[in-house]
Amino acid sequence: MAEQVVILRLGHRIPRDLRVTTHVCLTARAFGADGLVLADVVDKTVERTVLDVCRRFGGTFAIRMGEPWKQVIKQWKAKGGDVVHLTAYGIPLPEAIQTIKASPNPKLVVVGASKVPGEAFELATWNVSVTNQPISEVSALAVFLDRYFEGKQFSINFQNAKMKIVPSTRGKEIIDLTEQRH
Amino acid sequence: MAEQVVILRLGHRIPRDLRVTTHVCLTARAFGADGLVLADVVDKTVERTVLDVCRRFGGTFAIRMGEPWKQVIKQWKAKGGDVVHLTAYGIPLPEAIQTIKASPNPKLVVVGASKVPGEAFELATWNVSVTNQPISEVSALAVFLDRYFEGKQFSINFQNAKMKIVPSTRGKEIIDLTEQRH
Repeated sequence: MAEQVVILRLGHRIPRDLRVTTHVCLTARAFGADGLVLADVVDKTVERTVLDVCRRFGGTFAIRMGEPWKQVIKQWKAKGGDVVHLTAYGIPLPEAIQTIKASPNPKLVVVGASKVPGEAFELATWNVSVTNQPISEVSALAVFLDRYFEGKQFSINFQNAKMKIVPSTRGKEIIDLTEQRH
Repeated sequence: MAEQVVILRLGHRIPRDLRVTTHVCLTARAFGADGLVLADVVDKTVERTVLDVCRRFGGTFAIRMGEPWKQVIKQWKAKGGDVVHLTAYGIPLPEAIQTIKASPNPKLVVVGASKVPGEAFELATWNVSVTNQPISEVSALAVFLDRYFEGKQFSINFQNAKMKIVPSTRGKEIIDLTEQRH
């Protein structure tokens, strides 16, 4: 199992969840996850947007779609992986994070859009909350990955990028890397 | 100036940004911000959703709408506040956070939906990036507030809540606080 951290997106509704699911994908990619599985449905608009970002900004983030959610979880566990379900009902992240990090197994991080089936709570290795308040699966995922990877997202070098943003105090600075290669 | 941290949401488009702006509001509330200003437009659907969460889950999060964005920033600065503009083009958060925390002034945290006017980069005290990759204003805000408040969101006690989620390893546990008061 080469993938160490993969996101499983449950309950995506077309077209209602287009933008939030895209934000989930982009956050997952930028924060160092290996890929995302969009459960049960195929949404070519999400796929196109995310692959376009990958093509321009580089990296190897992979996206899969349409696989039944329960099958994805069961196969992940059968291969020895852990399942982290992010939910407002779970154990607070600060209490859970050390145990999660101590396990060397690859992590499938489950985030729901609409109501998550009760069975997902049973199948998860850990049900983890990023506050017990209604927030957003995007912010829950961001804070989880930030703490799990200990800020790794600030130093990732995305391979084969066509463009790169250069941090600046004012304004926008972008390097076109395709020109530099010529 | 009683408010210490307020979010300014720029470029909200009705109805396109309804769900993402709602996620911005809920994240701001749960992570300890005092309120949010939706610039330039009034969106009663966003307001209703956010106020409904506040009513059920408690706290004093305030939402204002329709004020011109530049006026909000200028008034904030005129009162001695700092402006933190979250943008992929800015200085990485780990480099900026100590300076930001060292300033005792109230913080206006600016997050854009559509393209942010160049003038916002000029008016900001700091332009700060949560990675220089395309992500999401929701995850940028979450990571900023998590680090700014040093995880305070995990221990906030929201006053006058009607319901409260109790963390659990499996399943969903909610306390109805209105019943307990009788």
